[in-house]
Amino acid sequence: MAAMKWWGWGLEGVEFTHADKPELAPFIERVLGLKVGPVTAAPPRLAELPVPPSTLPERLRTALVQACGAAHVSVDALDRVVHARGKSLRDLIRQRRGEFVRIPDVVVRPRSEDEVAEVLRAAIAADAVVIAFGGGSSISGSLEAPAGESRPVISLDLARMDQLLELDAGSGLARVQAGVFGPHLEEQLARRGYTLGHLPDSFTHSTLGGWIATRSSGMQSDRYGDIADLTKGLRVVTPSGTLVAQPVPAASTGPSIRQMVLGSEGRLGIITQATMQVRRLPAQRTTLGYLFPTFFDGVAAMREIAESECSVSVTRVSDANETSFSFATRSRPTLVDKLQSRALRTFLRRRLGYDVSRMALSFIGYEGSARHVNAQRRAVGRIVKRHGGLCIGSGPGALYDQKKFDTPYIRDFLLDRGAAGDVSETAMPWSRLEPVYDAVSTAAQAAFAEVRVQGYLMCHLSHSYQVGACLYFTFAFVPAPGADILASYDVVKSAIQQAFVDNGATLSHHHAVGTEHARWLQQDISAPGVAMLKALFDGTDPGGHLNPGKIV
Amino acid sequence: MAAMKWWGWGLEGVEFTHADKPELAPFIERVLGLKVGPVTAAPPRLAELPVPPSTLPERLRTALVQACGAAHVSVDALDRVVHARGKSLRDLIRQRRGEFVRIPDVVVRPRSEDEVAEVLRAAIAADAVVIAFGGGSSISGSLEAPAGESRPVISLDLARMDQLLELDAGSGLARVQAGVFGPHLEEQLARRGYTLGHLPDSFTHSTLGGWIATRSSGMQSDRYGDIADLTKGLRVVTPSGTLVAQPVPAASTGPSIRQMVLGSEGRLGIITQATMQVRRLPAQRTTLGYLFPTFFDGVAAMREIAESECSVSVTRVSDANETSFSFATRSRPTLVDKLQSRALRTFLRRRLGYDVSRMALSFIGYEGSARHVNAQRRAVGRIVKRHGGLCIGSGPGALYDQKKFDTPYIRDFLLDRGAAGDVSETAMPWSRLEPVYDAVSTAAQAAFAEVRVQGYLMCHLSHSYQVGACLYFTFAFVPAPGADILASYDVVKSAIQQAFVDNGATLSHHHAVGTEHARWLQQDISAPGVAMLKALFDGTDPGGHLNPGKIV
Repeated sequence: MAAMKWWGWGLEGVEFTHADKPELAPFIERVLGLKVGPVTAAPPRLAELPVPPSTLPERLRTALVQACGAAHVSVDALDRVVHARGKSLRDLIRQRRGEFVRIPDVVVRPRSEDEVAEVLRAAIAADAVVIAFGGGSSISGSLEAPAGESRPVISLDLARMDQLLELDAGSGLARVQAGVFGPHLEEQLARRGYTLGHLPDSFTHSTLGGWIATRSSGMQSDRYGDIADLTKGLRVVTPSGTLVAQPVPAASTGPSIRQMVLGSEGRLGIITQATMQVRRLPAQRTTLGYLFPTFFDGVAAMREIAESECSVSVTRVSDANETSFSFATRSRPTLVDKLQSRALRTFLRRRLGYDVSRMALSFIGYEGSARHVNAQRRAVGRIVKRHGGLCIGSGPGALYDQKKFDTPYIRDFLLDRGAAGDVSETAMPWSRLEPVYDAVSTAAQAAFAEVRVQGYLMCHLSHSYQVGACLYFTFAFVPAPGADILASYDVVKSAIQQAFVDNGATLSHHHAVGTEHARWLQQDISAPGVAMLKALFDGTDPGGHLNPGKIV
Repeated sequence: MAAMKWWGWGLEGVEFTHADKPELAPFIERVLGLKVGPVTAAPPRLAELPVPPSTLPERLRTALVQACGAAHVSVDALDRVVHARGKSLRDLIRQRRGEFVRIPDVVVRPRSEDEVAEVLRAAIAADAVVIAFGGGSSISGSLEAPAGESRPVISLDLARMDQLLELDAGSGLARVQAGVFGPHLEEQLARRGYTLGHLPDSFTHSTLGGWIATRSSGMQSDRYGDIADLTKGLRVVTPSGTLVAQPVPAASTGPSIRQMVLGSEGRLGIITQATMQVRRLPAQRTTLGYLFPTFFDGVAAMREIAESECSVSVTRVSDANETSFSFATRSRPTLVDKLQSRALRTFLRRRLGYDVSRMALSFIGYEGSARHVNAQRRAVGRIVKRHGGLCIGSGPGALYDQKKFDTPYIRDFLLDRGAAGDVSETAMPWSRLEPVYDAVSTAAQAAFAEVRVQGYLMCHLSHSYQVGACLYFTFAFVPAPGADILASYDVVKSAIQQAFVDNGATLSHHHAVGTEHARWLQQDISAPGVAMLKALFDGTDPGGHLNPGKIV
């Protein structure tokens, strides 16, 4: 099995390439001023970097070995470096620089809830810190120990706890160990004819426990629900014993403890099991491509779909910039493709009156019985038409489905060439969407100017709800000569986040708070809200052993 | 405006009667052994009872008057007695007996969030207790001050805060003051073409803030969602300032503070405003009646509907006992009714093979465009047929819609004749439904035997979710000669609640914990779950001023 990169996204040996995308290099040069050539800033070899030694006390090591077995207690340098952080741009840049500030002293891999409880007991007895590690895909700084942490730091890697334990077909409930990765979970469910339907961009490199700990959302959440909707039961090892939230469809038992664990980023305990709502695999599943004259025409259509009696699985609309990017990442087209594309453009311009430079690419997904899918397609088609949209068939959708988990690799491709790329996402009521979009655009352009770069900002609507939507922004730039890439990044990222909370949007729809977004928490959920979180964390973990410093 | 009864459900002058229901008295005599005659245990007049004097300190009174005006600070005996408790059977029996243990010293009626904040500040300064009062319809003991409470007790009645403040039609969001009663809220929304669609049994006598504070659920929640789904934004006056949860469709900002307020029963602060998801009034709304051979045939059909691509607004199935009760509450039938009824019974028995004594009455609701409603009716019809069910048209559904809010009055009708009637409801996964139903039936029969009564237990499925359902039990009995009605009640109620938590069902699906169900909380949400709630409450309200003693 390939190892996880310690300096980038995903697995060693898997990379994004522009070689088969002839329009991409010219596009990047045009929008970022970056000539795409060979790698100019390759990650170093780990052996060249100063990995701090483990300072694990012998007594704690013995206790951990007793809990999990010597084979599952690792002080290996690569292991500790891989577990030191997530995959935020800040994480990757500092990893590549060898800035290992407070990496874990040990990586422990329990295989059962009992072993997790034993590890936590040992950690508390030794006054150590425990940081739960799922797939390590956090881009919010949820996985790093505080720089000044003087206590021993344990990274608790749950990857061995990856089994579907029980499928209650009569209720559509699957009891699953929390360390399972997305693909392995779906495989186990598919063998029984079921699916969870949770497909975040990080799907291949993230775990069930991680999704729950961050209140994750997936590409098909419009149909299946966010992870908060899907998670019905929970088992969580806490300092005062194992928390058990029974899998009931709804309950009136005071403030929901299930909802307290959702989004808790390892601060309340270690999630060991969850009972998830699963559905039978649909008979049919298709994603259709659409074009709209402008982004806001597409947004208006998604709004109308969300309010209507239609039921769809994916709603996605890219703005003009992201639409251009999508077209630039097409594989080498055949002559037929080229002719079709030219004919389409002519049709759009002449017959539908599109300004092609403003048009928006959209995907809408459908699932279910053939009858249901057809009925939904027809109903959605009527709405799309009212907003000047045009269906361009299943080809682009199939392509999108194939490539959808590859996007995070592009960041490494840029970093390898000295450029920065990152994302910020948010949610807001429909009526606030246009003001938020405009404010973010303005703020990003001002930030690009401030750090003297030719930046590129693009956006898509990624989820629709009855009352609002998620906007997902991606930005990239080449730092100005002599400028520090992280300092420039901070200016841009902060400007975007600030524009969110200043305009009635949340600091994150599904990427969590961690340390990266903690600065905006008070403005988002108000000072009494922060105080409530503190009360919850301090009361549950009075010794501060569980992933300290995150969220608040 | 009619006054709220201090000794029973609803308004003075409104009562349940059996006079127009010729089959009811014989039914009650048969199932409870109670001859229904004139009232034998009328509630006393308040003037005859020993209402404890208000012990409100003068300084606090002055501060409250300054906050809300003298006209809205009441120490009137009736006012204080009405605000002393909710409407649980225990509450009503003790009110009728004049057992006023720790009634509020004062009832305060603020009209704005600022006034609420001022009252809370004054209360904390005076070391007083504040109990938020919505409609006063709690049947879980959420409104009574602890018997030994030595501090001044303030009942904060929010009924003057009843306005729809803002309708964001573009997002389907309505910002509303928390003290508004159900009918007044729906009136204000209907004038703008919208509906919240939240219809608990208590609808006419409960408020938005109360629904949120108890995690309420309504008759149409299958379509509109429970109150936890509908509540998007919140404003809550807490000891450390006003908590603001922005109305966003979803967020990843740590454990959800919105979800912490939901179900908090006044322990975290006073809910002053909420931003609710509302929908356009549907073009069509209809409730159809169905019959199934048995309760579990009906349950299986609801399960299949919940898993299917159908979208319905109400799913309800009564067991054989509740079906008999429903038929017994019919108004005086015409000759045509009688003939039709006889023909139907013959048809059911001879052609469909029903055992009429076991059959189950069911209601399924449909809403939306005419096209949508027709499509759903057809799809549901196919499922119903597969489970041996039969549609009996819209007549029974219309009747059910008219009478649906009258049921709670029956309890007073029984109390007036010395009999006890009450409810317990729960939720569980579909696969646990039959075991829970059977366990509750067995437990209730054993309890009836223990207290030497001829009890009656009936049940309906009231809500369907993809993974499970809510079962709603109603029981009644006439206490044995010489037995204490409350002591007998405790035996029966406890047996039912214990059967819930012993069988994987929750202590309450939508009636909250209060004091009535607190005993089962630890078994339901586990000891670490209870500890988390305590941490949250103690940290947010360190002085214990907010509705002490509830939930934990």
